[in-house]
Amino acid sequence: MHPDKPATPGINPFHAMTCPLPITDYDTVLLGHGSGGRLSGRLLHDVFLPAFDNPLLASLDDQAVLDVEGTRLAFTTDAFVVDPLFFPGGNIGHLAVNGTINDLCVSGAHPLYISAAFILEEGFHLDDLRQIVLSMRQAADAAGVHVVTGDTKVVNKGCADKLFITTSGVGMLPGERHIRASNAQPGDQILLSGTLGDHGMAIMSCRENLEFETSLESDTAALNGLVEAMLEAHPSIHCMRDPTRGGLASTLNEIATHSNVGMVIDENRLPIHPEVKGACEILGLDPLYVANEGKLVAFVAPEAVAPVLDAMCAHPLGQNAQHIGEVVGEQPGMVRMRTAVGGTRIVDLLMGEQLPRIC
Amino acid sequence: MHPDKPATPGINPFHAMTCPLPITDYDTVLLGHGSGGRLSGRLLHDVFLPAFDNPLLASLDDQAVLDVEGTRLAFTTDAFVVDPLFFPGGNIGHLAVNGTINDLCVSGAHPLYISAAFILEEGFHLDDLRQIVLSMRQAADAAGVHVVTGDTKVVNKGCADKLFITTSGVGMLPGERHIRASNAQPGDQILLSGTLGDHGMAIMSCRENLEFETSLESDTAALNGLVEAMLEAHPSIHCMRDPTRGGLASTLNEIATHSNVGMVIDENRLPIHPEVKGACEILGLDPLYVANEGKLVAFVAPEAVAPVLDAMCAHPLGQNAQHIGEVVGEQPGMVRMRTAVGGTRIVDLLMGEQLPRIC
Repeated sequence: MHPDKPATPGINPFHAMTCPLPITDYDTVLLGHGSGGRLSGRLLHDVFLPAFDNPLLASLDDQAVLDVEGTRLAFTTDAFVVDPLFFPGGNIGHLAVNGTINDLCVSGAHPLYISAAFILEEGFHLDDLRQIVLSMRQAADAAGVHVVTGDTKVVNKGCADKLFITTSGVGMLPGERHIRASNAQPGDQILLSGTLGDHGMAIMSCRENLEFETSLESDTAALNGLVEAMLEAHPSIHCMRDPTRGGLASTLNEIATHSNVGMVIDENRLPIHPEVKGACEILGLDPLYVANEGKLVAFVAPEAVAPVLDAMCAHPLGQNAQHIGEVVGEQPGMVRMRTAVGGTRIVDLLMGEQLPRIC
Repeated sequence: MHPDKPATPGINPFHAMTCPLPITDYDTVLLGHGSGGRLSGRLLHDVFLPAFDNPLLASLDDQAVLDVEGTRLAFTTDAFVVDPLFFPGGNIGHLAVNGTINDLCVSGAHPLYISAAFILEEGFHLDDLRQIVLSMRQAADAAGVHVVTGDTKVVNKGCADKLFITTSGVGMLPGERHIRASNAQPGDQILLSGTLGDHGMAIMSCRENLEFETSLESDTAALNGLVEAMLEAHPSIHCMRDPTRGGLASTLNEIATHSNVGMVIDENRLPIHPEVKGACEILGLDPLYVANEGKLVAFVAPEAVAPVLDAMCAHPLGQNAQHIGEVVGEQPGMVRMRTAVGGTRIVDLLMGEQLPRIC
């Protein structure tokens, strides 16, 4: 089955819910184009890749790997439009800094420098801005990076929703590290650093019209310390990524496509916080597709499983790490899940948006 | 006179027009905070610099100069919120790529790689996006840079105004080049690469409610070729900057402050297109404060004036270059202008916004 083939009705109830239009039937931007799912991929392949067409971009990693005068650099950018700006466990400032650090470090790079561009809506409270900027500094300090350049633009009231932040980052990539989305290999084992869906459900818990009582907090965190501990434990890590919008399911599908491999994961081994599970059931969401902001998934050689998993579990950000599945040669591009009741189902990309403006 | 001292009433009519509030009397973001003038500076000094506090940021150049494993890099970011997106001479895509290239090359860096983050409003036309992205590619090709990484977010209709683009850039900075906003020295001569205000007035000419007939076009262009020609002609270029929002007046004031020097420029030597002059008179604007997107101002040692000016005039983007003034030791932080009628006036920073959303 080709990964672009529409899912069989019934396998994934979100397809119908999130995108009533056939995929070719639009000439304007849909919310789903920002989802990290199938529509996002289409926008990338229809608009951005043909125009910018270069091998660095075409690798479709979360960071470009550059060579400047013999120094290997990782370079990445992310726009943050999360709503609300403040949520249990953090704010847009933490997200912006940690998200950029994570996109650098999952390549094996040491994150070093960050830029920050602010688009402010006229009338936004300066005290809120101060608090967000202070959070950015604290997140940068915690990860050992510096915010070294920036820009601020202001638009008229009603022309933006309070505040958007775009961060970019530069890191140094040691010569021996080649951790890419295209490097997962049959036989690789799949390690997940912790519970799924905490960030997305923390955001949902404080959305207008949808507030529910929970002690859930966003997992926003910088993963560079965890990554270094993993690489010190064993160098045979072939591929890593932080499963943000679109959740683990979208990340696994992307890597299955880029590496041209199949994957099988075990539902029973997926760590999910009981509160996330409960909230997802109430809202009709699948935690596999809910965003994380402080988790990573790693594809490692069989001999690396024990040392890397031990290193993850010994790190504060990997205490709930699990060995969740493996890479296979069959059915390249497809992710399958052995379900808790003993069956197998396809874990497909969503068409559009499960939770808009989650990051 | 301290550069922060309020201008004497009457010297600059824009103060009263653009900011009716005393500077301490706000607790929310004003349009003027994005102006590149005095309110922008206050936001920087009140909010961003204290929080991020590091020497790289504190240099307040348009780019940070980084050292990664002995390789000198320039790193910059800019958010673009121009309205309208398409204007005579270009669109937001040209601006975003050229603006980032220019912020890199005025440090003497060779621009190499660009990231692009798109914030899209639901309902934005994909054909417009395609055209803008194609313009970005064309601008990148013309300057010899590559767009190597990116991000796309979509917000609900009404939560953004069509499209915002944030570009960041990385360039390689040769070891011998130290061209900084703090390096202007008494005795330096001030060279301007061409006519003032073309971009800002081209935008104004197609603003809703304000359309007027003109053949004016934005000057958006990448200046890296011009900069290389200038540095090949003579290495004694101490400081360079592209005078974008806030115009030449704001740029000169910033450099006067950072270098702790005075400046004297000649009104008679300022190249201004007759149509810009006419439109400014009608609208009550001062071309000294109107944005440029393809111009630079350079502070050079006296012996460099002739060769650098010759090199500028020989380049397509410097044909109207002029020697407009000089740096002096007296009255540090202050920019003065010998007027056409033989007097002298202070060229101060504006308080707030002359033309919102110009870039």
